[in-house]
Amino acid sequence: MGEFELIRHYFAAASCAQAGAGVALGIGDDCALLELPVGEQLAVSTDTLVAGVHFPDSSDPFLLAQRALGVSVSDLAAMGATPIGFTLALTLPHAEPAWLQGFARGLDQMAQHCALRLIGGDTSRGPLALTLTVFGRVPNGLALTRTGARIGDLLCVGGELGDGAGALPLVLGQRQAAAAIAEPLLARYWSPRPQLDLGVALRGKATAALDISDGLLADCGHIAAASGVALLIEQARLPLSQALLALLGISGARDCALSGGDDYLLAFTLPAEQLAGLQAQAWPIHVIGRVEAGSGVRLLDQHGQCITPQVRGYQHFGSDGD
Amino acid sequence: MGEFELIRHYFAAASCAQAGAGVALGIGDDCALLELPVGEQLAVSTDTLVAGVHFPDSSDPFLLAQRALGVSVSDLAAMGATPIGFTLALTLPHAEPAWLQGFARGLDQMAQHCALRLIGGDTSRGPLALTLTVFGRVPNGLALTRTGARIGDLLCVGGELGDGAGALPLVLGQRQAAAAIAEPLLARYWSPRPQLDLGVALRGKATAALDISDGLLADCGHIAAASGVALLIEQARLPLSQALLALLGISGARDCALSGGDDYLLAFTLPAEQLAGLQAQAWPIHVIGRVEAGSGVRLLDQHGQCITPQVRGYQHFGSDGD
Repeated sequence: MGEFELIRHYFAAASCAQAGAGVALGIGDDCALLELPVGEQLAVSTDTLVAGVHFPDSSDPFLLAQRALGVSVSDLAAMGATPIGFTLALTLPHAEPAWLQGFARGLDQMAQHCALRLIGGDTSRGPLALTLTVFGRVPNGLALTRTGARIGDLLCVGGELGDGAGALPLVLGQRQAAAAIAEPLLARYWSPRPQLDLGVALRGKATAALDISDGLLADCGHIAAASGVALLIEQARLPLSQALLALLGISGARDCALSGGDDYLLAFTLPAEQLAGLQAQAWPIHVIGRVEAGSGVRLLDQHGQCITPQVRGYQHFGSDGD
Repeated sequence: MGEFELIRHYFAAASCAQAGAGVALGIGDDCALLELPVGEQLAVSTDTLVAGVHFPDSSDPFLLAQRALGVSVSDLAAMGATPIGFTLALTLPHAEPAWLQGFARGLDQMAQHCALRLIGGDTSRGPLALTLTVFGRVPNGLALTRTGARIGDLLCVGGELGDGAGALPLVLGQRQAAAAIAEPLLARYWSPRPQLDLGVALRGKATAALDISDGLLADCGHIAAASGVALLIEQARLPLSQALLALLGISGARDCALSGGDDYLLAFTLPAEQLAGLQAQAWPIHVIGRVEAGSGVRLLDQHGQCITPQVRGYQHFGSDGD
């Protein structure tokens, strides 16, 4: 078995059988073939992760695969799409069985968690890097875009912010912390859980949405620009985890929440009348601000005064890709 | 303008307007949205090209972009699919305007030639590499796969073989040749023309098809294995270009045709009764052999005797990816 045959062998689990929901033809031909129910659109997103830029070279392959696929699928959640499948382009300096086995296991675990299948890919020799392209489906006209935020809408997020950025010094070995603090933060970094169910629940309700990857302020800026509105964020309402507060204190935790990246939680705008219904269904929705006329993003202190945040323009462990 | 903003600026041409045939939402949101006509399937393929592995580091960016997109779209041609769009994941050590401008121009030219649009992507800092994912559509049940070759079918190819492999020493600067010889070969290498129209013409007619990327023998082996048949190739019927013959002589030219890669022409099996109709429409179809019972690929000399080719297992400029 050649070494790239070996790779295909390890990835057999994530690719499973030839057919499946939405997949008419999987790995093994010139193209995969996908099917869409009548009245639905295909959502597509591509992400690249490069060793030494987006993750440390020495990253555990199981965790790396989980993270890479979770981060990519988060873009489907942000559109309100239901996952179908993904392709993996994997570039490796050499095919080491232990590394491949761990990577394939992590990929398979996240693929099962998100209910999507490996439908194709390419393996090349070269510096370690991965490009994942994910596919989902969403009913015509119900995709959650960035363009529909309306004056008066609430600004909401889907969970506690900043844990991914707070974990980074732990990931890089620049800092130590007790297990009770480190473990939940590292889990948020290495195993992001795309908010797929929340995305589906927000179809036809949220007016704009995205997943927070560049940091709350930067990503809210994207919604504001695309929708032609201003977003106000009340600093006191930022949901922060106990672990992040214990590690960094309130000021550091807020910094991570506002300017850190890697949250992979949904941020969205919601007409006020939709809130009670969604909260009654126990969706994790935190109101952190509102939409007003104007442009850009403003941060308010507890007295409603505008404050200038220390925006650091989070750089994804050194890159300025998106 | 940040340097990755600059990249987006250069790629604006290939991405064109937000909407287009099959593209409901282009670049700029968490996902692109594609639409499929009722009764059609989506064809998807991913290819990675790594500097120093699949192309020389010093490659001209205009030619590199043309080649990268042409090679990827060739997988759509091999399925009989009509192109819709593509995503580009581009990893670059730094954003150099002259390089980006050339690359974007090459990408745009091939995108226009193949009538598909850039619908999304990702840019990262890192060693130079590209991953393209291409999307096309094909009516349900008419995709050309590798599995349907039947005993008695003709084995055909869509043009003269071996030019891409013959060009490689010229590309690498290991060899010189007169312009009349070098130019057509280099054009075949740097600007492969996916046989999209031929692929569409073969829908419902060819019983199996693929595009020749690993070399005729290896790729015919894929059809033979997937279809559970044997393929016979008559060496004397291999179509060879004047330029390749002038550069390498008959023996070297045949080697390139049989074992070289990078042809990106279609190879397909065709019931004999389909041939005349397709040739009457002036499709470039060369019969080179036939399908028989058995397994594997056999090469026959002019007396019909089986000969053992010098299979070199073409390695794509050093890689064994697919």
